[in-house]
Amino acid sequence: MVAKNGLLNRRTFLAGSAGMVTTAIWADSTTQEPWRSGSGRGMSAYGSPSKYVGLERLQIAGHPFALQAGSSSTPLEKLNGTITPNSLHFERHHSGVPEINPAVHRLGIFGNVKRPRSFGYEDLLRYPLVSKILFIECSGNSYRNLAPTALDQSAGELNGLFSCAEWTGVPLRLLLEEAGYDPKSDWVVAEGADAAGMNRSLPIDLALEDALVALYQNGEPLRGEQGFPLRLLVPGCEGNLSVKWLRSLQVRNGPAHTREETSKYTDLQKDGRANQFSLRMGVKSVITAPSGKMLLPAHGVYEISGLAWSGHGAVSVVEVSADGGRSWQRAEIQSEPGLYRPTRFRLPWRWLGQAAVLQSRAIDSVGNTQPTRTVAMADAAPGFTYHYNGIQSWGVDQQGRVSNVYG
Amino acid sequence: MVAKNGLLNRRTFLAGSAGMVTTAIWADSTTQEPWRSGSGRGMSAYGSPSKYVGLERLQIAGHPFALQAGSSSTPLEKLNGTITPNSLHFERHHSGVPEINPAVHRLGIFGNVKRPRSFGYEDLLRYPLVSKILFIECSGNSYRNLAPTALDQSAGELNGLFSCAEWTGVPLRLLLEEAGYDPKSDWVVAEGADAAGMNRSLPIDLALEDALVALYQNGEPLRGEQGFPLRLLVPGCEGNLSVKWLRSLQVRNGPAHTREETSKYTDLQKDGRANQFSLRMGVKSVITAPSGKMLLPAHGVYEISGLAWSGHGAVSVVEVSADGGRSWQRAEIQSEPGLYRPTRFRLPWRWLGQAAVLQSRAIDSVGNTQPTRTVAMADAAPGFTYHYNGIQSWGVDQQGRVSNVYG
Repeated sequence: MVAKNGLLNRRTFLAGSAGMVTTAIWADSTTQEPWRSGSGRGMSAYGSPSKYVGLERLQIAGHPFALQAGSSSTPLEKLNGTITPNSLHFERHHSGVPEINPAVHRLGIFGNVKRPRSFGYEDLLRYPLVSKILFIECSGNSYRNLAPTALDQSAGELNGLFSCAEWTGVPLRLLLEEAGYDPKSDWVVAEGADAAGMNRSLPIDLALEDALVALYQNGEPLRGEQGFPLRLLVPGCEGNLSVKWLRSLQVRNGPAHTREETSKYTDLQKDGRANQFSLRMGVKSVITAPSGKMLLPAHGVYEISGLAWSGHGAVSVVEVSADGGRSWQRAEIQSEPGLYRPTRFRLPWRWLGQAAVLQSRAIDSVGNTQPTRTVAMADAAPGFTYHYNGIQSWGVDQQGRVSNVYG
Repeated sequence: MVAKNGLLNRRTFLAGSAGMVTTAIWADSTTQEPWRSGSGRGMSAYGSPSKYVGLERLQIAGHPFALQAGSSSTPLEKLNGTITPNSLHFERHHSGVPEINPAVHRLGIFGNVKRPRSFGYEDLLRYPLVSKILFIECSGNSYRNLAPTALDQSAGELNGLFSCAEWTGVPLRLLLEEAGYDPKSDWVVAEGADAAGMNRSLPIDLALEDALVALYQNGEPLRGEQGFPLRLLVPGCEGNLSVKWLRSLQVRNGPAHTREETSKYTDLQKDGRANQFSLRMGVKSVITAPSGKMLLPAHGVYEISGLAWSGHGAVSVVEVSADGGRSWQRAEIQSEPGLYRPTRFRLPWRWLGQAAVLQSRAIDSVGNTQPTRTVAMADAAPGFTYHYNGIQSWGVDQQGRVSNVYG
């Protein structure tokens, strides 16, 4: 059973693929391309993208009085696979990127502990490490889709406060054990070494479960904007909790109620109350191709593909619709399922000039289904809210223009 | 049962970890680190490593008469996890890096096909794609360990013609089907668009099985030195077969016997014969920490960790020895097993000033065991040979100096 408006069954389709894209007949060129007639450049110490590829983090925006305090987002529509290259991982800073000397920086653990400890960078490199492919999503990601009318923006501009990397670090549990944490204490307050002194309270269960003190990202030492020399990483939870430039951890009873958990990062509801410490990110997906601001160059077959993730577990199913949610078809999922690990989904689609509304919805391993925009916004107070995970809809018109729409 | 000379059981060890590394007592600093008293830098479009991190591809070496023809290797000892950042993926060029305009470049399929076809870059982006985490290893990797006496070099200098990325591309099978390949033809000859016109013959079974025309590496479009706009990628096989800047594929009967499969990339044996088309890379592992040219800063616990891979399947087991191969202990494997996917292995080790010889050996899913250096060299003619996969041994002296030794 195949859903409507051009969606194709990937398995059937791949078994008989001839003629999927109109291509030219082969004829060896009589003119010599310039790069075939002389040596190219030599080796380089540290590579960079081709000059023909425009890759930039988008929407570099600061506060008008503090340009260092802002965010940049991943250009999701220019990427494929699941890994975000380190140079394009989204940024969010409250006081800019500090340039920290790892020989001076210390991580302290104090408060309700038997042995207050201070760890140097070189100390931490000797501890048992673990590596995991994990997403980080800003709690405010996709907030532009809360606007009353749909903004004509790209997948990355709208949803790019989301990235994924292979993170390697020391299990936080090990360091808390080294310090002899009091098992009756229920919170840990993490503070960064940036000038903002960004701090957040973490339930100790989360700290002991799978939180990391991350030292490497996609193989290499953390980038400055990702917390070099070390950051907290709390899988599945809002990015703000993964405190960068991590400087201290205080074991204590009760949360600290910092600025970031009272004035910010709470979810104001229509009834006037606010959800506090709603830390896990919801199940979510975004089609990255075709997506906003693209133009389909010709009639024929396209691969619909995108990213799906959940802060509550692994992604189990992703469904795609080409008719604005009236019919759905299961997409192929491309990476091994893993907790808090994004997956790439794929489904072929035949476009013959018809208007379409492309949507994806993810279902996670604990049974959460990504809601429609209307349902996702139902309880939130009007205006800005965190944790928005509504379905992203892309309209395709008869000329092949793709744009953000509210489905 | 725990092997000798300080190796620790990781599971037991992690269950009672207090005191593993000698660390300082926590005392909040009375002096303010400079980065805590003022804003840092703002967002950037395309990030780069911290100035405190020295990351370079090593051994940038060209032919004396053609500096563009050479290789650079991944600094394995500075990395962790399994992904190699694109900027540090090893390079090997025969005529430098061509700067190819993707709007002009075409991929042709001709020869024994019903429909000779020419694919543009934009065409290929519309095809169904797949993403896989795969290693690429140069057939000549680790050749410096063939030297009569052990060279005092780092893990990357010795073994860094090996890297790993998440590759995304079109299954080559789909494109061969589009062209209507003759199923009775048994070889495909791939040619690059570099000035060297690097070309290799690929058995058609391998082409149909899991070869890709790769378009993305770790999320972003290929780097120039990795074949932008597109390269062949033949999982598990010697890197030279994964032709970069792929320009044409000829379906034919029999191999082409190109320069790269006669003069080079054959394995000369002691009996004077040479193995040709020995394409798959053997099962192999390398300890990256502690490794050559490092100095252990103090007595105490260290994590021994490294990378393991096989061109014949997945890695099943990695064992580590601290006494030059007299006793072995199984290490923890850190990523999901996958065909031609490297894994990171880890094992804690207590060093109290004793001399040690650290080794690792991998076993793959089809039962191959990584051989000792002596066994690996037994049949090869003296001097240079390809496909060397002998066990790497690191000597540790009583002062904590780590160096390459022949175990």
